[in-house]
Amino acid sequence: MSELNIQRLDAGAADFEASLQKLLAWEAVSDSGVNATVDEILGRVRTQGDAAVVEYSNRFDRVGVSSMAELEISRERLEQALEELPQAQRSALEEAAVRVRDYHERQKSDSWSYTEADGTMLGQKVTPMDRVGIYVPGGKASYPSSVLMNALPAKVAGVGEIIMVVPTPGGELNELVLAAAALAGVDRVFCIGGAQAVAALAYGTETVPRVDKIVGPGNIYVATAKRAVFGVVGIDMIAGPSEILVLSDGSTDPDWIAMDLFSQAEHDEDAQSILVSPDADYLDRVEQSILRLLPTMERRGIIEVSLRNRAAFIHVKDMAQAVDVANRIAPEHLELAVENPQALVPDIRHAGAIFMGHYTAEALGDYCAGPNHVLPTSGTARFSSPLGVYDFQKRSSLIQFSADGASKLGPVASILARGEGLTAHARSAEYRIKQD
Amino acid sequence: MSELNIQRLDAGAADFEASLQKLLAWEAVSDSGVNATVDEILGRVRTQGDAAVVEYSNRFDRVGVSSMAELEISRERLEQALEELPQAQRSALEEAAVRVRDYHERQKSDSWSYTEADGTMLGQKVTPMDRVGIYVPGGKASYPSSVLMNALPAKVAGVGEIIMVVPTPGGELNELVLAAAALAGVDRVFCIGGAQAVAALAYGTETVPRVDKIVGPGNIYVATAKRAVFGVVGIDMIAGPSEILVLSDGSTDPDWIAMDLFSQAEHDEDAQSILVSPDADYLDRVEQSILRLLPTMERRGIIEVSLRNRAAFIHVKDMAQAVDVANRIAPEHLELAVENPQALVPDIRHAGAIFMGHYTAEALGDYCAGPNHVLPTSGTARFSSPLGVYDFQKRSSLIQFSADGASKLGPVASILARGEGLTAHARSAEYRIKQD
Repeated sequence: MSELNIQRLDAGAADFEASLQKLLAWEAVSDSGVNATVDEILGRVRTQGDAAVVEYSNRFDRVGVSSMAELEISRERLEQALEELPQAQRSALEEAAVRVRDYHERQKSDSWSYTEADGTMLGQKVTPMDRVGIYVPGGKASYPSSVLMNALPAKVAGVGEIIMVVPTPGGELNELVLAAAALAGVDRVFCIGGAQAVAALAYGTETVPRVDKIVGPGNIYVATAKRAVFGVVGIDMIAGPSEILVLSDGSTDPDWIAMDLFSQAEHDEDAQSILVSPDADYLDRVEQSILRLLPTMERRGIIEVSLRNRAAFIHVKDMAQAVDVANRIAPEHLELAVENPQALVPDIRHAGAIFMGHYTAEALGDYCAGPNHVLPTSGTARFSSPLGVYDFQKRSSLIQFSADGASKLGPVASILARGEGLTAHARSAEYRIKQD
Repeated sequence: MSELNIQRLDAGAADFEASLQKLLAWEAVSDSGVNATVDEILGRVRTQGDAAVVEYSNRFDRVGVSSMAELEISRERLEQALEELPQAQRSALEEAAVRVRDYHERQKSDSWSYTEADGTMLGQKVTPMDRVGIYVPGGKASYPSSVLMNALPAKVAGVGEIIMVVPTPGGELNELVLAAAALAGVDRVFCIGGAQAVAALAYGTETVPRVDKIVGPGNIYVATAKRAVFGVVGIDMIAGPSEILVLSDGSTDPDWIAMDLFSQAEHDEDAQSILVSPDADYLDRVEQSILRLLPTMERRGIIEVSLRNRAAFIHVKDMAQAVDVANRIAPEHLELAVENPQALVPDIRHAGAIFMGHYTAEALGDYCAGPNHVLPTSGTARFSSPLGVYDFQKRSSLIQFSADGASKLGPVASILARGEGLTAHARSAEYRIKQD
């Protein structure tokens, strides 16, 4: 065995399900201390507005300001960041933005309606939200690509105004993040973070306008605050650590797979990388690649901890069993490193994104393929979807009864309403029944 | 003024926004006592499974059982309830089910993909959830129509298994609810409720299978439990009291509007009914209808409290201002009681459902028009939608790069990854760049 001791599991073992559960176990615990802090911050921002946000920003981010105005970044400053970007970075960012926008255009829903024989019209009207907030983490996890991935679907949906918040600990600005905000068409940017930023967006302050939905990842205080304001505003998912599951038939260069696993593991120590194959020799070869390549990696410290604590190689009897494992895990990223990925896709029930074939490195999807890189983590692909245009549109039912239609259906509504003891409902429907 | 003293507001008054805020103010407070109780219940059901659910059901619902098996209703029992329904009720339920199913069929999303010139394929795969849980309240708010409205969209989406929970305080079963479950194709029914039912569905027990999403309304314990398990499973919205906003140009029979307002108010004391019109005389006439009709209503006690505490008549200068008020409120139910509702709809930005014209009583929509009656309350139509098939489908991104596509986009991903300091991402993309 290697010095890394990457965990090995056998899908045929009697205790496989228990081992898998242990491997996947993850819980972001909002302990009572976090809850109490967040409750206090939410309450104070709600009642004291800007003053509270300024105070918390000075305390937690050490920004040393005396008003919210000092924490807003002007549109000119964003444009300047974009202008001053090295040409290669700017072109790459622009190409990524074009592809992301193109892909998301295909997610737009349109209003629809139909009219029945008696003239009754039914349908659904689809509208964008008025205003949304995007939370961008500060510090080491401040990613320009995330600005594009969160803002562009909102733009494509037709959201009227996009407000971005990004904490700047010690006052440090990330020029690439500002440039991405300019490129994505973010309307206003405030240098605030933590639960105070979530509160400002959810309730509004004198300076920060109240939004309709808050999206974007953050630390445990941000996640706890988002959960608490859910209902006052919409929120996206509560994100856990990032993970990849690679299903391999042994036909991809082992170095490529090792690097794909590294690209997950380098995010942070809690990230999870799992490789599944029916070919035990291939698992050994990937492990050898990992051992050979690891010393060459810039972020090897993080990668090593992540692989040692959370990675696993799972041996299966065949690719059908590999697909079962994938459906059991419902991974955020699923790489089908096989000769014929099309053959497997119909049987995949749960995955955030499916990367098909030897050439589809997850990294391509993370930055520029087009699909969103904000994906359901920790098995939540069982019930949720990649961030998309549909997260920024909402629907209203449309119902217009003709006189004939109301007369015909009135008795049905009346009978059901009386069955529930709701007689005003019944009589309201009965009024519309023709009396002749 | 009437004995009811329905509150009057003038949209032109200087303090209108403040008055409106006060009128709409609503907060379901999960106090620390509720939170602590729910946390304990969730923890015990998670670790002790059936035993804890049985114990809580005996304590809270006084069902006197010794095992979970006694709390399951067999499919035969459901079918029996449907068979024994009076013919008129059964026909009405069946007609409603057909219309709800037909409407929701139009909400189904299909998978899509496209292939670029270099052979790269992008798309999105749409799949139903494996298993969902439906919470149906017990007691006086146990509505068969809600069983249809929650279960049928899941059925149309293609959900594999639908688990219904309904508390039976004192062991009392609602035959109409059981019949609706049979008709909607619910797979299993457990007579459990409260936070213990939410926990059983979210974590699974020896008897109750773990679901992927929980939908349906409930009391403060249910709402608090749903918020707590969000992320372990998907949840729908946290519902507040039901509300209706009627915009009238004065052309509808005032008795009809009075009854429409009653049909909202009769739900419970917290329900809210608001009428908006530019015609002050018309507001008076509706008030007279209310005073005349109220003594004839079976649920006049509830209606009276609801109207007195939470209703309002708002005078506006014209219908354009009425529409502004509607967008400001983002009502659950919006009734356009006007001659030409089509003219107003394009300007309505936020509403759960729009009931158009004189013949479209909300009651028709509640039972049998076809659209869902589970709608966003308390202004959440700003960011959320009626319950629909889309709540039971989820998406997976599909990405398959051709060798040419990966080679062409590799440098873009590499530049962006290096800009973020993620060099394993960069190298993973670089491996796929052709070397010749």
